[in-house]
Amino acid sequence: MQPVLISAAKPSTAAAASSCQTPFLTDAAKLIDSAKTFIFDCDGVIWKGDKLINGVPETLDMLRSMGKKLVFVTNNSTKSRKQYGKKFESLGLDVTEEEIFASSFAAAAYLKSINFPSDKKVYVVGEAGIQLELKQAGISYIGGPEDGDKKIDLAPGRFMEHDQDVGAVVVGFDRNINYYKLQYATLCVRENPGCLFIATNCDAVTHLTDAQEWAGGGAMVGAIKGSTKKEPLVVGKPSTFMMDYLASEFKISKSEICMVGDRLDTDILFGQNGGCKTLLVLSGVTTLETLQSPDNSIQPDAYTNQISDLLSAKKVASA
Amino acid sequence: MQPVLISAAKPSTAAAASSCQTPFLTDAAKLIDSAKTFIFDCDGVIWKGDKLINGVPETLDMLRSMGKKLVFVTNNSTKSRKQYGKKFESLGLDVTEEEIFASSFAAAAYLKSINFPSDKKVYVVGEAGIQLELKQAGISYIGGPEDGDKKIDLAPGRFMEHDQDVGAVVVGFDRNINYYKLQYATLCVRENPGCLFIATNCDAVTHLTDAQEWAGGGAMVGAIKGSTKKEPLVVGKPSTFMMDYLASEFKISKSEICMVGDRLDTDILFGQNGGCKTLLVLSGVTTLETLQSPDNSIQPDAYTNQISDLLSAKKVASA
Repeated sequence: MQPVLISAAKPSTAAAASSCQTPFLTDAAKLIDSAKTFIFDCDGVIWKGDKLINGVPETLDMLRSMGKKLVFVTNNSTKSRKQYGKKFESLGLDVTEEEIFASSFAAAAYLKSINFPSDKKVYVVGEAGIQLELKQAGISYIGGPEDGDKKIDLAPGRFMEHDQDVGAVVVGFDRNINYYKLQYATLCVRENPGCLFIATNCDAVTHLTDAQEWAGGGAMVGAIKGSTKKEPLVVGKPSTFMMDYLASEFKISKSEICMVGDRLDTDILFGQNGGCKTLLVLSGVTTLETLQSPDNSIQPDAYTNQISDLLSAKKVASA
Repeated sequence: MQPVLISAAKPSTAAAASSCQTPFLTDAAKLIDSAKTFIFDCDGVIWKGDKLINGVPETLDMLRSMGKKLVFVTNNSTKSRKQYGKKFESLGLDVTEEEIFASSFAAAAYLKSINFPSDKKVYVVGEAGIQLELKQAGISYIGGPEDGDKKIDLAPGRFMEHDQDVGAVVVGFDRNINYYKLQYATLCVRENPGCLFIATNCDAVTHLTDAQEWAGGGAMVGAIKGSTKKEPLVVGKPSTFMMDYLASEFKISKSEICMVGDRLDTDILFGQNGGCKTLLVLSGVTTLETLQSPDNSIQPDAYTNQISDLLSAKKVASA
């Protein structure tokens, strides 16, 4: 069974498109005209590690001056939008909290969108970001870092009590994962009627440090899948919840959103699943060779080297 | 993707059999005659919680006196065969270590069966039982309880070293699961060429105490699946590795094995997957109503109330 991606994808046209090559972006002005909102993946698009990619501030400024809405997405759930904003600030980017769509925020926004009952609470397997976003959304929660040092005493007859009012378990990356949390979350999902199992993301790897890849949120989500035999509702990429949320919140059509990313199988697929325009940048992990390989079936609407190539639209406008 | 069950099942005849009802065992002597080896599930067959089921010692004695080989299976990997033997001893049952097939032993036996190289070692996510069985089999290992208190320091640039000689990660139930172990196991599976990912079992629940169900080995296995996106080789039930092992070790045909259990979707299916005869006992979780329900497609060769019903064969013989 596959995880349930909230707002399941329409049948992808990617397979059919595999024989036609993605064009290089030649008319930036036309692309910009056709989109009201730009969603940017961050790593490989805005920055690489701790280094800003050339021309990013000017590009964002230009798009803003043209009245475009900008959104920055990350599957990182360990920080709240506010906390994540500091990364932008440290790179000299002027980005507001509302423009950042972290998967911690997505979990809280999803619960708000379904009118999560005010007498119910959330059990968190994850870090502070999820709790901060739940608090911001006015949703009660337990668990999280507070349960990081708890141990299970397995004396005969030991019974773990759990809160019957937990109506959702939200699971994200958690470096303090332990058996107490796994059992608590499992009891809630299995025994509380209607209790939701929400994953911020199912990413195999995360980049906690630059030195290597680290086991990602997919590990914590996989553990709860393994003990409940249930599939989670995923709110981060590649679920299209965010596109639906943006479309509904800002009353725009999803075809007026352009997803900009550096990964074919996450960012571009995510954009296509949501019915958005898609632009691949080669400033991250994908090479032109990979894009044009016969093995690649995911073809964005266009590709370019880096987002500052969009600045050519300005030159055209001022020419 | 489904986990890789070692020795994949032959197409099951269960669906075809769904319209014909399982017969009650009327001729115990005939069943006993046809089998050289009996594999018993324990909970619900031999004991219930801490209570021996009526007539078990006499039944086992009779089968032994008839020259039958007896094997007792458990997916519990926290104990070695030797340790698990104490449970039998405490109930007054005379069972030898060699008759107990715990999934901890299955993991070690599997590695021996594939001639796991002597210059390679195993990383253990699990408890002492796995380590004791590996030691017994002469296989080097690291991890396990020794890594139970390790924490990850995530300072910038932090890099976790891992042993390049780890050729297999064995994952079982681990009440001291932590992020250190998840990351270590993930690095071995992802980065060591050919490193095996072996699961003792994928059970959602385990019975650590009588008072409730506890998140089982499926949680730990699910975590490593989530961070590696790989499927494990499963050596415990419902994998048929054990049947293959017994058939090869004792030079018997699998059709001469009778699997006796109280669960349709684990024990009986496990027996059928292995090409064995199957006997369901109603002394555990399955009721006659469940067995005979139109919703049930798993039909054992016969059913009876409890294993002591086999004693009728003795009466016939001495009549």
